Amino acid sequence: MTDLLAFTASLVDIPSVSHNERAVADHLQSLLAPVPWLALTRLGDTLVARTDAGRPQRLVLAGHTDTVPPNGNETARVDGDVCWGLGSADMKAGVAVLAELARTVAEPAVDVTYVFYECEEVDSRFNGLERLFAERPDLVAGDAAVLAEPTGARIEAGCQGTMRIEVVLTGERAHSARPWLGRNAVHRLAPVLAAVAGWEGRRVTLDGCDFREALQAVVVSGGVAANVVPDRAVLTLNHRFAPDRTPEAAEAFVRSLVGDVDGFEVVDVAPAAPPALGHGLLTALARATGAPPRAKLGWTDVARFATRGVPATNFGPGDPNLAHSAGERVERHELETVHRVLRTLLDHGVEEHGVEEHGVEERHGAEEAADPPGKL
Amino acid sequence: MTDLLAFTASLVDIPSVSHNERAVADHLQSLLAPVPWLALTRLGDTLVARTDAGRPQRLVLAGHTDTVPPNGNETARVDGDVCWGLGSADMKAGVAVLAELARTVAEPAVDVTYVFYECEEVDSRFNGLERLFAERPDLVAGDAAVLAEPTGARIEAGCQGTMRIEVVLTGERAHSARPWLGRNAVHRLAPVLAAVAGWEGRRVTLDGCDFREALQAVVVSGGVAANVVPDRAVLTLNHRFAPDRTPEAAEAFVRSLVGDVDGFEVVDVAPAAPPALGHGLLTALARATGAPPRAKLGWTDVARFATRGVPATNFGPGDPNLAHSAGERVERHELETVHRVLRTLLDHGVEEHGVEEHGVEERHGAEEAADPPGKL
Repeated sequence: MTDLLAFTASLVDIPSVSHNERAVADHLQSLLAPVPWLALTRLGDTLVARTDAGRPQRLVLAGHTDTVPPNGNETARVDGDVCWGLGSADMKAGVAVLAELARTVAEPAVDVTYVFYECEEVDSRFNGLERLFAERPDLVAGDAAVLAEPTGARIEAGCQGTMRIEVVLTGERAHSARPWLGRNAVHRLAPVLAAVAGWEGRRVTLDGCDFREALQAVVVSGGVAANVVPDRAVLTLNHRFAPDRTPEAAEAFVRSLVGDVDGFEVVDVAPAAPPALGHGLLTALARATGAPPRAKLGWTDVARFATRGVPATNFGPGDPNLAHSAGERVERHELETVHRVLRTLLDHGVEEHGVEEHGVEERHGAEEAADPPGKL
Repeated sequence: MTDLLAFTASLVDIPSVSHNERAVADHLQSLLAPVPWLALTRLGDTLVARTDAGRPQRLVLAGHTDTVPPNGNETARVDGDVCWGLGSADMKAGVAVLAELARTVAEPAVDVTYVFYECEEVDSRFNGLERLFAERPDLVAGDAAVLAEPTGARIEAGCQGTMRIEVVLTGERAHSARPWLGRNAVHRLAPVLAAVAGWEGRRVTLDGCDFREALQAVVVSGGVAANVVPDRAVLTLNHRFAPDRTPEAAEAFVRSLVGDVDGFEVVDVAPAAPPALGHGLLTALARATGAPPRAKLGWTDVARFATRGVPATNFGPGDPNLAHSAGERVERHELETVHRVLRTLLDHGVEEHGVEEHGVEERHGAEEAADPPGKL
């Protein structure tokens, strides 16, 4: 079998900072073009490879080929069973596993769509997966999807929604020697911040995964001059909400929590995705991992599938906490675990295990979970 | 007698935005140079005119000649008994009264030092009065001082001190989807702002004047990015403290009020000045006005005298609330009242009235008082 660690290193050595994925897409295309059971389509620097064996179900396996900018780690270094380098964890290891499956699993039990897409690490409007949904939805259609993002080779199911809100408080200017002639907008932040800081965070368990919501003041500004009572303060909040809430419900919650303010605007929102582990393919996947699934608290592209009604989950090699860091790396055993689990799923599909409740006895709390600092 | 309103208008028509007082200083110098009882000294564009009649007491009468930048009002307009225009109230009306006294009161009962100084409306390091104290303290020595700043032709005694403080709160960054892994510095503003907003303001009566302290959050900032728990927040406070407190005592008070913070720095401080109405010359002045004195809540140059041990007060024509506004103006009756009161003081000194308690039965509360939005 292919040395997946060496394969990962070879992909790391092809620079592919966002917007510059052509070389890596060319390379993957050259690997997959000769494979007789795959139909290839390229859209920009996004590559789609599909089997068409007439199976009753289709699974989408997706990974992005771009990386964040280098941090002194643009060259791969293999040291024993560890591959270091930019994108090793996020997510050329996942891409290596998917490409390996694509070129070796000739007769999968389910039809498979492999997606290698560009521009995940930058603004949504460049996202290759989003472009496929917009321009070629037929190419990404499926019954379930797995994103091979780094999750430490265990399922991180669904994802929480995220919402950015600007709260504005107004007042009336006055000379700071006579503040009683005005109204201080910055002082009015006090009860709002107290309400936000004091909120404990709602928790909800879905498909056995513990989601933990969050609400944070991320930016604050206000003030006119050192001798003027300020008449305007702006507070930016970031709310992470569990998949049992719609963006509308999440907004209503925050609105009621902050109380009486002069401006309340949702400036950015991305919906949550349910864990969807009740779906046969994902249930089978969860069983095959042998590790209890946990909730994904940060936002990921699984939500792009979820909003199209496609159950999706995160499952890939690499420590999510190392993503985007200079010390990014991936270990051989994670690559091989993810490969083995996905291979099992492709070889046997749902039939092997049947659809049953996945038993999760011992589950780590949300405190121990971790995800990388991504764009959202 | 000179038409003081017309005289004020003629001074308004000589532009003198801060750093550009040469023409107005030249003009005043040309008016006062021929006056036989005055000795003139010029330092930069600051003009000092002193009598030297061997009186036992010396009174300093001071006014600044500069204005803030124009606001469509750079030309004087006299309409009936009102003179409109830049600097009409702040404080060419006061300068007109002082210049009129300088050239007409040949034999004052006290020796008089008239000071016409530059750069009051800008940073202290340019202030002409401060420069005199530093380079020629002999020229500004005296037993008491009156600043003819606009006070509505009534005494505004002493002034409150002012202090700018930067409070820093720190935390620990984390992804905003997992805030429990960090500590939010912006959230930590809540109790500090609540303490500041909730403080009622100490009040103290000195020499019959009601001082009312203030503490305001004037600037706030914090935040790293929309998906990062912020690790630093900075809050700028402005504290106005009554003349019975030293800057050190005022700082100690604020420090105890804000409680546990990571940084607390006094970045700017100017001490208060006591009303000093117990001093014979100022008692006589207060009696002559016929109106109850009130406290000056904003900071003024009287504090420059007070820190040198010279009792000083604010007393001049013009509504302080109109200073620095496009609608700035002064009325004839205020000019004439201030002229009459100061003339009485110069003609009779302390002897006429003796030193006795100034009786103040009816006094407006601090709420009705007003002062212009100055630099401090």
